[in-house]
Amino acid sequence: MQLDIHKPILDLNDRLAAENRARLDEHGIYLLDLLASPGAGKTSLILASIERLRQRYRIAVIEGDIASDVDSQKIKAQGIPAVQINTGGACHLESAMVKRALDALDLSQLDLIIVENVGNLVCPTDFYLGEDAKVMILSVPEGHDKPLKYPGIFQVARAVILNKIDTMPVFDFDERAFRQSVQDLNPQAPVFPLSATTGKGLELWVQWLAGEVDRKSEPDDS
Amino acid sequence: MQLDIHKPILDLNDRLAAENRARLDEHGIYLLDLLASPGAGKTSLILASIERLRQRYRIAVIEGDIASDVDSQKIKAQGIPAVQINTGGACHLESAMVKRALDALDLSQLDLIIVENVGNLVCPTDFYLGEDAKVMILSVPEGHDKPLKYPGIFQVARAVILNKIDTMPVFDFDERAFRQSVQDLNPQAPVFPLSATTGKGLELWVQWLAGEVDRKSEPDDS
Repeated sequence: MQLDIHKPILDLNDRLAAENRARLDEHGIYLLDLLASPGAGKTSLILASIERLRQRYRIAVIEGDIASDVDSQKIKAQGIPAVQINTGGACHLESAMVKRALDALDLSQLDLIIVENVGNLVCPTDFYLGEDAKVMILSVPEGHDKPLKYPGIFQVARAVILNKIDTMPVFDFDERAFRQSVQDLNPQAPVFPLSATTGKGLELWVQWLAGEVDRKSEPDDS
Repeated sequence: MQLDIHKPILDLNDRLAAENRARLDEHGIYLLDLLASPGAGKTSLILASIERLRQRYRIAVIEGDIASDVDSQKIKAQGIPAVQINTGGACHLESAMVKRALDALDLSQLDLIIVENVGNLVCPTDFYLGEDAKVMILSVPEGHDKPLKYPGIFQVARAVILNKIDTMPVFDFDERAFRQSVQDLNPQAPVFPLSATTGKGLELWVQWLAGEVDRKSEPDDS
């Protein structure tokens, strides 16, 4: 049932990911790999985070999609460098794709790169791209039971964002049960409830991300 | 970048799928493969459809999840046979998994089997399980641009359900743009806007599904 094709692919992927990471480290760039289902609000969160961090950091975005450049157009409209990767069917980004995207960016001019992975709660989980952290978004309409059904992604996430909290009254979402499930799977991960569109709760997330970027870009200040 | 591992796996899968299909045809059972993102409302739609069709057809459900038996418990609570498949990480069901689920059901006592695939807009698209039709659900909170980003699933779907229309006022969802995108990708597919929780719009969907099941179970009446 479980065909054993996983390992050799992951080995190749990890090797290239390590090369990506070495290159990013050399430039002191923090790479965030953002994971979520389609429509959970990845692009909206990226746009809201850019708005609050662009005075402080030089930011670029790598957009992963099966098809289309809808998202990278939105980022570029904000005057932020964006590279679109179309996977042509693959349900996740691989490190070789990110390598090519890094080639297209001027790394000497960046502090933070946000990778928007393909919308998917499963496939991107296993693929290390060279990122400093994976962060995942769950949105309220998806339901509080998702950590039970998709434990892997909640386990690899350094932080968990609960988006669209402004729609809480419309949905039967049990935030307490959700937090408990996340904690059971990943006790270290902070949970940030927020609304990327109204801005509510964004400050704590932005502070956390800034702390991560600072730790990497100014290693001598610690 | 695109490692060529896809084809041999699909060949094996298709062979077992054809066996599943022959077995279902022999019993006059219609198999529906239901696809959607996590939280789009697959289980809710299945429960609502069962409620409206259980007097007319003998129904069973095959639940695909990475982990947990949350969904099959909900189905069984309605007195409907349900088989849980845990893929242990795989982002889609394969025909070998469905074969084992069919083994666990009494096929002589069924007219309709609904397969709830793993929540994912990408991976399940390519895998034929022996189903009579794939049907997909998009929910309003996911956004109207999803056909542009995940064209494959909209192309393989025999019908497209737009769920959670009761939340339309809360989200910036352009139903006209959505319908146009679906039509561009798949002109034959009907679109059923509905709310599985309030019941609004369900009747048209249920009629369509009943028509499909009837065509298969009573081939001589046509």
